[in-house]
Amino acid sequence: MSVTAVQGFEAAGIAAGIKDGGVPDLALVATANRAPVTAAGVFTTNLATAAPVQVSRRHLGAGQAASAVILNSGNANAATGDAGRAAAGRMCELTAKELGCAPDEVLVCSTGLIGIPLPMQPIERGIPELAAALADTTEAGRAAADAILTTDTVRKETVVVAELADGPALTVGGMAKGAAMLSPAMATMLAVLVTDAACEHAALHAALEHGVRDTFNGLLVDGCTSTNDTVLLLANGVAGNQAITGEGHAFHALVEAVTEACDELAHAMAADAEGATKLATVVVHGARSSDEARRAARAVAGSQLVQCSLYGRDPYWGRVLSELGASGAWFDPERVDVSYNGVAVCRQGVAALHDETALEQAMDQREIEIVCELHEGMGQAQVRFTDLTHGYVDENMGTS
Amino acid sequence: MSVTAVQGFEAAGIAAGIKDGGVPDLALVATANRAPVTAAGVFTTNLATAAPVQVSRRHLGAGQAASAVILNSGNANAATGDAGRAAAGRMCELTAKELGCAPDEVLVCSTGLIGIPLPMQPIERGIPELAAALADTTEAGRAAADAILTTDTVRKETVVVAELADGPALTVGGMAKGAAMLSPAMATMLAVLVTDAACEHAALHAALEHGVRDTFNGLLVDGCTSTNDTVLLLANGVAGNQAITGEGHAFHALVEAVTEACDELAHAMAADAEGATKLATVVVHGARSSDEARRAARAVAGSQLVQCSLYGRDPYWGRVLSELGASGAWFDPERVDVSYNGVAVCRQGVAALHDETALEQAMDQREIEIVCELHEGMGQAQVRFTDLTHGYVDENMGTS
Repeated sequence: MSVTAVQGFEAAGIAAGIKDGGVPDLALVATANRAPVTAAGVFTTNLATAAPVQVSRRHLGAGQAASAVILNSGNANAATGDAGRAAAGRMCELTAKELGCAPDEVLVCSTGLIGIPLPMQPIERGIPELAAALADTTEAGRAAADAILTTDTVRKETVVVAELADGPALTVGGMAKGAAMLSPAMATMLAVLVTDAACEHAALHAALEHGVRDTFNGLLVDGCTSTNDTVLLLANGVAGNQAITGEGHAFHALVEAVTEACDELAHAMAADAEGATKLATVVVHGARSSDEARRAARAVAGSQLVQCSLYGRDPYWGRVLSELGASGAWFDPERVDVSYNGVAVCRQGVAALHDETALEQAMDQREIEIVCELHEGMGQAQVRFTDLTHGYVDENMGTS
Repeated sequence: MSVTAVQGFEAAGIAAGIKDGGVPDLALVATANRAPVTAAGVFTTNLATAAPVQVSRRHLGAGQAASAVILNSGNANAATGDAGRAAAGRMCELTAKELGCAPDEVLVCSTGLIGIPLPMQPIERGIPELAAALADTTEAGRAAADAILTTDTVRKETVVVAELADGPALTVGGMAKGAAMLSPAMATMLAVLVTDAACEHAALHAALEHGVRDTFNGLLVDGCTSTNDTVLLLANGVAGNQAITGEGHAFHALVEAVTEACDELAHAMAADAEGATKLATVVVHGARSSDEARRAARAVAGSQLVQCSLYGRDPYWGRVLSELGASGAWFDPERVDVSYNGVAVCRQGVAALHDETALEQAMDQREIEIVCELHEGMGQAQVRFTDLTHGYVDENMGTS
């Protein structure tokens, strides 16, 4: 269940022929009555933004409302200049024409290879067919979620329900694509979230920013790498609650639900990372500040040697210590403790006696948690990452 | 030819049994008369310094002079605490006893796995044998250069001669180990350089710092990653030149020779990178400042996706543009040009028409130069890196 689990939203996904082989590559999410609703978006901070990011930003800026989101996979429409912007604009026009709304009420997302002109013929032909397929069924939501996938191996959907103390339940539904290896290797991530909450624009934007911060951005390490990264949230008010402002119980319930939805999608992305066999988390405790904890955690998570060692099930804590030391965080290397899935392998900066069998079992797990205790202060942070594998190299050594 | 090409220095290398299989693992470089000479060193800026780095720093600080350098491979003696420091100190004592010099006239380097106690028995037994093998022959220099290798596949030696306008020629010889994948994946690098120049300590240190900056540090991207990184330079004055101070023709000739020696060794390291099939350079021109150029070049060089694409001989400039955009350097993505080995694939931020055959030939080269022109200013920088391969994953997925 994804976006169509939320009342008042429809979805569709088809194979338009942007990709070869008849696989789904064009998706649409729209309000059931084709009327604009409150919308918020967060986008990549990459200087080189793709055309659809530029167009969606402009459309959101115009009205802070949207009736639909049109998405394609198979081509990122990035580094395509004026022609690319025209193509992204054209996708919105074609969609608006079918839905009977204004072009700037349509948001647009693309994902795929960078630098290749978007083939417009399949899109011109596809959008009428796509609009005709719009439905509020589970199958329609699934078709949309399928059509945005690239190197993903599994569809990513979520539904979260928030109970209000003094009002109707609110539902948040979402779909995403992203087979996210850690930054800097992150490929595009897209997510479309919808909710039946009635919510003021500023509160909706705040809820989305909060939701993204510790989920997608925690996953992506620096949250700002790819040309196309986009997370959108549309709120149609169908639930009939009193419009949410930026405070109070209802706002917090919405923030929590949006965050949970983002977290589920982010977790699904990490679990589906290109070629990965391990889903790892590095937790740093006891840094002088949370900022230093984050630097330290990112240094470990970003280390190709640490990533490779996890692939080989090798608890090589010496490399973890070295990456902590190079991170810029300040600490005394001779006070550091390191454990893998609860098995302490380093205490006070030197090798710790441990049960070899327990350690082997720990390293055999698919999910590995590396905890680093610096014993300097209260700062803590965690970063999710994956191992670096033969499959990752295979996946990324060619674009064809 | 390496350190023994320089008059007044001797070297030796033996298999002491630190590594399994009877491969060379213990090396010594010493002055022929066992007397201390002017010495300079630059070390890792990693907070987690290995014991030999701590001991060498202390010994250099004491007298700015050294009679010998004792080095082992097979164990980094890092993250080994007080026992590790005692072991590194013991290596100096044993060497000093054999040579008849003071322990703090001996510098020490180790390379290998982090976090494992240094096995002292082979070292206690090996150092007398090693000292007895000291000689000024090419073979002795080669044996020393062999004994410091770890995952390296080739020995790394250099000799550079500097002609002085008004004095004798100066010789700089050196040996190094390091099969350097780009940071953050850098393993230890060690280099020992010697010269027959007479040189004041401050000038020698300045020459070494300059030599390292654009060579090893250009290779290592941030120059500060591993626990054991060390570059040492000893100057014995045997050439009989007037002692070099920090200015004038002779100083510049020495700086140039040291830089060239470092550059040759750094190039050999990059060429021998773990599992690499490509030796790549990214050159950024036209940034607003050289600082921004360096950030941009590092972002491209550090990208696992760019590294994988080179392995696949795929000129995926879209990812290069994306990494530039995420680097923090400021530029207009729609003015950027990108070329691979002279074949322009991107002009003004979009795909450029090019000769496919020429591009294929360019990508088949072992050395690939990616030039990125930002058209914003005069800032430029370059960073060497390598591709990310199955072999790299194999090399680093286990420590055993």
